[in-house]
Amino acid sequence: MLDNLEKFTKLKRRTAGIINIDPLQRGGILTPEAKDAVLEWADGYSICDFCTGAMDKIQNPPIKSFIHEVLPEFLDVDQVRVVHGAREGKFAAMHALCKRGSCVVADGNAHYTTLLAAELSGLKVERTPVSSEPEYKIDPEGYRVTIERAIDLGDEVDLAVLTYPDGNYGNLADAKKVSQICHDLDVPLMLNGAYSVGRMPISARDLGADVIVGSGHKSMASCGPIGVLGARDEYAEKIFRRSQLVPNKELELLGCTLRGAGLLTMMASFSHVVERTKHWDDEVQKARWFSDRMESLGIILQGVRPHNHDLMFFKSDVLYEISNTAKKGRYFLYRDLKKRNIFGIKPGLTKQFKLSTYLLSREDLQTVADSLEDIIATYTKT
Amino acid sequence: MLDNLEKFTKLKRRTAGIINIDPLQRGGILTPEAKDAVLEWADGYSICDFCTGAMDKIQNPPIKSFIHEVLPEFLDVDQVRVVHGAREGKFAAMHALCKRGSCVVADGNAHYTTLLAAELSGLKVERTPVSSEPEYKIDPEGYRVTIERAIDLGDEVDLAVLTYPDGNYGNLADAKKVSQICHDLDVPLMLNGAYSVGRMPISARDLGADVIVGSGHKSMASCGPIGVLGARDEYAEKIFRRSQLVPNKELELLGCTLRGAGLLTMMASFSHVVERTKHWDDEVQKARWFSDRMESLGIILQGVRPHNHDLMFFKSDVLYEISNTAKKGRYFLYRDLKKRNIFGIKPGLTKQFKLSTYLLSREDLQTVADSLEDIIATYTKT
Repeated sequence: MLDNLEKFTKLKRRTAGIINIDPLQRGGILTPEAKDAVLEWADGYSICDFCTGAMDKIQNPPIKSFIHEVLPEFLDVDQVRVVHGAREGKFAAMHALCKRGSCVVADGNAHYTTLLAAELSGLKVERTPVSSEPEYKIDPEGYRVTIERAIDLGDEVDLAVLTYPDGNYGNLADAKKVSQICHDLDVPLMLNGAYSVGRMPISARDLGADVIVGSGHKSMASCGPIGVLGARDEYAEKIFRRSQLVPNKELELLGCTLRGAGLLTMMASFSHVVERTKHWDDEVQKARWFSDRMESLGIILQGVRPHNHDLMFFKSDVLYEISNTAKKGRYFLYRDLKKRNIFGIKPGLTKQFKLSTYLLSREDLQTVADSLEDIIATYTKT
Repeated sequence: MLDNLEKFTKLKRRTAGIINIDPLQRGGILTPEAKDAVLEWADGYSICDFCTGAMDKIQNPPIKSFIHEVLPEFLDVDQVRVVHGAREGKFAAMHALCKRGSCVVADGNAHYTTLLAAELSGLKVERTPVSSEPEYKIDPEGYRVTIERAIDLGDEVDLAVLTYPDGNYGNLADAKKVSQICHDLDVPLMLNGAYSVGRMPISARDLGADVIVGSGHKSMASCGPIGVLGARDEYAEKIFRRSQLVPNKELELLGCTLRGAGLLTMMASFSHVVERTKHWDDEVQKARWFSDRMESLGIILQGVRPHNHDLMFFKSDVLYEISNTAKKGRYFLYRDLKKRNIFGIKPGLTKQFKLSTYLLSREDLQTVADSLEDIIATYTKT
């Protein structure tokens, strides 16, 4: 194997002329400034040339100001650190705040990494109810029911998690009510903002979140893996506690986290990211306009209505029926969209799939809708 | 703060015309191929366009082959995964293999992140003796003594760690003997190869390492954070076990680790990295030649002799004496080297410091030595 390594160099990713509607990809596209930054700072420990002992205290480049001043203001929370991603942030918070064997209550739509973070921290997970289709709604009262039931069964509930929005339906639950209910029951709330922080305006304080995580590669135009982890002082003290063996290092972060270019891409993109959150209403309008068009084709939006996020889940009997007779069966949709340079719906999916309209032009979205209309027409005719 | 974000864009790192002798920086400089890769794959989740559920199984780009075929052959170990860095690899191994409250025995020269990884895993750390200056040598027999003493005191020793080489003196202990001693006592050995994997030829099998970690940003010409974690099947099964809640995901890695360009830089640099390990002897010769020159100036190499690594620790009475009277005191050396475009000795250090000669030309190293000679002469005259 070690004789034939040239195949790992010069690997290309086709992006030019392509419309990518994968929700995972839409918010992580680098700005031109971040592209400059990634090249400028690409060497291994590049950001550590002027380190005096901790990454978050580096003043040249101005990481300290970014982490300790800018990010807390942006998230409206007391303290923030940069971590490897939202999942690593969730693990750090759970591992630091929850007693092993205790219980985390998460929304029924929680991302799988919430379950992994809890399991790796030695915690049980109880999930709140989700309403039936097509809404898949998280009722804040579900937190009260689930927390109280866990306590009744003898569990200690040390943390609640709300995925805001969830990564399947793009539903934004009433976070404020959730936090009130959790706080009534003396349970702190962590907000998983992987699909919100960097896309829409978010104030941890207003929503009552005690801890918040966001994803740089998912929603902050950053070269990943990178994320943010913010917390109110009370919880930040525990999560960002110093090591007993190495007293100048933050234990839960193993000293330093992002020791490379990713952080500089987040910084370089940040003025764009702040700006784009101000135009969130336009993104929501665009998503609604697109989903109306989809529904006219018989591709039906799931989730709460009116829909408030660019991430959308659709069900489509019409595409599923075509797959029953089409050449290549259920792969026809992927293949036919690929022919039209549209990517992002996973190969093999027809009956239901998610997509995102985030930062795509109406013209591109028109192309996507027209293509689907065209594909359906082709098969319906024959 | 959010009104003035332009300062975070267009940040530059000066590298042209500079000689950087910081050991942290020498092995992480990207190859031209990796620079192309970082730009090509910089967008957030770029490598996940064709994911079918797990990052290490992605075939386009050919990540699966790199992780499951190339890296195991390179490290000569059964299984490998890519992680966020050597420290995160150590944490994963300790967290997976060691019972909470048990004990890890590490060499007395262990990197601070070994202590952090153990502490975060809820483990005690006992350290083997280090010989006195100037050698700071790790005697393999120290492992027997330390493990037996811990057991005598009622501790369970679940893992031993050897830093190979250590990050202060660049000492390469007799890893084979260490592993034999550990195995005699039924303790698995983890090798911390942050300064060896990617620099010199390493066979986990030959050295008897049960687990091995390496650092992409430190020694594999990669854009960090990134590292490798390898293990013998017996231990890999435990470290890379699947989640019970999300059965298709590896729990200790929280599903996927490197979901971005860093991995593609490691892949792009890999043919160069494999090649450079074949010229390790030249690097050692160059380091010895440079240290001879240093010693002629009264700057004395510490650590085991003959020295077998590019990372070297020096003590220098002559520079320290100058600092007692020089303008700006102990900062004179940093300032005077900076004037000559030489960086990498931390500001304020004169009496002792570490540096690396790795992949620097003899011409550049000559410049470093001549500069130090010149600086010493200037102050000694006055």
